[in-house]
Amino acid sequence: MGTRIVLVEPSHPGNIGSVARAMGNMGFSDLYLVRPVDHLVEEARVRSSGNESILAQATVCDRFSEAIGDSTFVVGTSARIRTVGWPTLSPREAMREIAKRTRSEQQCAIVFGPERTGLENRHIDQCNVLIRIPVDDKAPSINLAGAVLIVLYELRLMLNEGSDGSPKPTSREKNEIVATNDQIEGFFAHLQNTMESTGFIAESPRDVLMRKIRRIFLRPGLTVDEVNILRGILTAVGNNNQTNHPSKQ
Amino acid sequence: MGTRIVLVEPSHPGNIGSVARAMGNMGFSDLYLVRPVDHLVEEARVRSSGNESILAQATVCDRFSEAIGDSTFVVGTSARIRTVGWPTLSPREAMREIAKRTRSEQQCAIVFGPERTGLENRHIDQCNVLIRIPVDDKAPSINLAGAVLIVLYELRLMLNEGSDGSPKPTSREKNEIVATNDQIEGFFAHLQNTMESTGFIAESPRDVLMRKIRRIFLRPGLTVDEVNILRGILTAVGNNNQTNHPSKQ
Repeated sequence: MGTRIVLVEPSHPGNIGSVARAMGNMGFSDLYLVRPVDHLVEEARVRSSGNESILAQATVCDRFSEAIGDSTFVVGTSARIRTVGWPTLSPREAMREIAKRTRSEQQCAIVFGPERTGLENRHIDQCNVLIRIPVDDKAPSINLAGAVLIVLYELRLMLNEGSDGSPKPTSREKNEIVATNDQIEGFFAHLQNTMESTGFIAESPRDVLMRKIRRIFLRPGLTVDEVNILRGILTAVGNNNQTNHPSKQ
Repeated sequence: MGTRIVLVEPSHPGNIGSVARAMGNMGFSDLYLVRPVDHLVEEARVRSSGNESILAQATVCDRFSEAIGDSTFVVGTSARIRTVGWPTLSPREAMREIAKRTRSEQQCAIVFGPERTGLENRHIDQCNVLIRIPVDDKAPSINLAGAVLIVLYELRLMLNEGSDGSPKPTSREKNEIVATNDQIEGFFAHLQNTMESTGFIAESPRDVLMRKIRRIFLRPGLTVDEVNILRGILTAVGNNNQTNHPSKQ
C-alpha cells in the first residue's frame, strides 16, 4: 500500500521516462499508465536516467477505472481553473491528506492527464479532490515530469518528516474502513438508477446534475459503512416501488 | 531587485531552455549564465516552451563573481552531501530567507552548477548557504530544470502568500452559498421522512443510523444548491409513491 502515479494517455515516450526519473528521485516506483504510447522505447529509457525498472514494472491499463479502482483517495491534477467548482487543494494540503492515509495503509493515486489537454471531466468526476500547482498566468504550461516532481517532493517531505503537526489519526472506529473507488462507483450507479426510476433525473440536465451529486459524496470521503447505509436507503426505495407495483415487475 | 537564477557552465542548450520554462512557470525571468553553451539555439528555444524572452534577455558572464556580485544573499544548490560542512538549509528554509530579503528590496541569487559535476568548492565558497533538495539515495540525480522548478516553487509560495499555496477562496460559484443549519436540518427531516415511508428506518436502530447519516452530509459542508438537489431527489421519491398509490393519500 502506498501512492501510485497514474498517467492518462501520455503521448510522448520521453515524458514517461522523465516522469520515471522524477519518481525515482523522490523515492516512488508505482507507475500506472492508461493507454500510453510505447513506454519501453529507447527515448523513454534514456530519459528515465537509470530508472528503467520503474518503466519495466509499470502497469498498463485499458481503462482509467482499473488504475484507480482500489484507491481510497484519488487526487487529480489540473492546470486550468474549472468553471464547475471541484474541491481544489494546494499540492501541500493534498499531500498532507495522502501522508495521513499512507500511515493507515490506504492506497492512494495521483492522476495526471494527457500533456496537451489535461484531465477530462469524466476523469475528474472520479477524483476526490483536484490540486492545482500555483503557476504564473503568463506561462502556465508546466512540464509533465515537473508537475510530478513538485507533487512527489511535497509528499516526500510529508512522509519523511510528518512535520505538518496534524493530529494523529486515532479517532476512527474499527468499522470505518474508507470505501474504495469501486465501492463508491457502485453507489453512484445505484443512485442514478433510483433517480431514473423515480423520474427525477429527467427534470434536469443530467451530466451537470450527476457531477454536482458526485461532488456531494466524494468530498467527505465515504466509509464502507456509509456506502452500505446509502445503498440500503436506495434499496428500500426500490423495494418499496416493487412491492407496491407487482404488475410492473 | 528580486531573485535571479545563475547557471554555472550549463552544457546542454535543451537544459537551459527547460530552466527558462521552469522560471516562467513560477513567474521569474532573471537568468544569468556563466560560460554557457549557446543558449539561443533552436533546441533551447523549443524547450523553453514559449519563454524565449527569458533566454534572449539572459545575462552571459565570463566569471562567476560577475553573476553574483550585487547579491546580498547567494544560495548554492548541491545534490551531494559535502564533507566540508557548509551551512545547509532545506529549500523551504532558504526560500523563506530570500522572501524576507526580497521584501526589503535586496538582490538574491540561486546558483546551480554544471549538470554532471555540480558546483565546485570555489563556487560554494562564495555562497551564503547551501541547499540540498531531499532525494532518494538510490536515484539522487535530479534534472537541472527540475531542481530549479522545486526551488522556485517554494520561493513563489513564500513570496505570494507566505503560506502553503492554497488556492485563494474565490473559486466558488455564485450559487455556492453554504447552507445554513436550518436548511440542513430541513433536509435531514425530509430524508428521515422518506426513510420512514419506504420502511428503511425500521430496519436499523434509528438514532445510531440517523447520526451516521448526519455525519455523511455534515462533513462536506453542503451548499444551498446541493441541499436543493438532495431534497429534489427526496421529493421525486415521494411523488413517485403518491402517484402510484392514490388510495394511500
